[in-house]
Amino acid sequence: MVVGRDAPTSADFPLDDLPGAGRMDLLARCVTAALLRSHGIRESVQVRLVLSDSFTVRFDGATLQGLHPDERSTAALVRATLDEREAAIGHIPVETSPGVSLVRMGLAETLAAAGGQVYRLHEDGQPAADCAPPANPTLVLSDHRSFRAEDAATLEDADARRLSLGPTVLHADHAIAVAHNWLDTDGFETY
Amino acid sequence: MVVGRDAPTSADFPLDDLPGAGRMDLLARCVTAALLRSHGIRESVQVRLVLSDSFTVRFDGATLQGLHPDERSTAALVRATLDEREAAIGHIPVETSPGVSLVRMGLAETLAAAGGQVYRLHEDGQPAADCAPPANPTLVLSDHRSFRAEDAATLEDADARRLSLGPTVLHADHAIAVAHNWLDTDGFETY
Repeated sequence: MVVGRDAPTSADFPLDDLPGAGRMDLLARCVTAALLRSHGIRESVQVRLVLSDSFTVRFDGATLQGLHPDERSTAALVRATLDEREAAIGHIPVETSPGVSLVRMGLAETLAAAGGQVYRLHEDGQPAADCAPPANPTLVLSDHRSFRAEDAATLEDADARRLSLGPTVLHADHAIAVAHNWLDTDGFETY
Repeated sequence: MVVGRDAPTSADFPLDDLPGAGRMDLLARCVTAALLRSHGIRESVQVRLVLSDSFTVRFDGATLQGLHPDERSTAALVRATLDEREAAIGHIPVETSPGVSLVRMGLAETLAAAGGQVYRLHEDGQPAADCAPPANPTLVLSDHRSFRAEDAATLEDADARRLSLGPTVLHADHAIAVAHNWLDTDGFETY
């Protein structure tokens, strides 16, 4: 789950300036880092992009089609989804393309819907190498800025554990790649 | 070091179709995965993109300026560099912008110039968790395809060690993020 604080919630952003579109470049890279392996999809992964705390785009690896590795086409997929936002009524998701859906929810509702042990990255968190990977974790990341106090409180309410991936603060997409490696290797044990 | 087998060697590629430009999208993400941490540059890192075995673009974290996290602007930086390719004569690099230079070299010459213990990723390689990170490694990655036989032979000649980052085959940019984590944590020990 990636919290895009300034992310667009309508389809009127340009594909030629993704950094200027609420850091859609970063959000797109987070989607591909979470869902793609070389020549394939991570079928057991779901990605939720929380856009400006009001809409959430969900990508389900089990049924996803049409995701490519580059930022521009991934951002275009988000944009096509937002183009159908009027069909997202209440808290009922609308599937906008195979494996991609949109729902009118912010962070708190999206966290409640996700389930599983929640983790957030934190410099004072438990080192990943000392922490047995859980079966069905929800990892929550912020975009280029730290969580707002209210988002951090929402994560506290969801019993989020603090996890450290290392001494270097990483971009969210790179953190996702590292977190996958932690899970792929059963905590750096299985290669 | 990233080997882009079909990568463009001239500046006439479009920024709106980076996947079609010899997978410049992937090469751009490799540059940013290697050089950027959150809100900063990895000053001790050098990236070399080997383009179609004929030109190499080198990014030096110590002096680099103007690198942004998104694919498009990074590809534009590569394109601006290639626009000065006639100034790259023999094996003498030409600095095209601060910390970015271009040299008329393929993989073998670029490997010889890089120095340090060479690693290549391989599914049968030594698990990263069992391998103490060296002081000054050169990690060589291929683009979306495997190394050609002749590139693999060049790596053999350079005494490349085989390294495994896990059981899942990753995109090159994600592999770079994982390799950095291996180095940042002193082999998953320091958090």
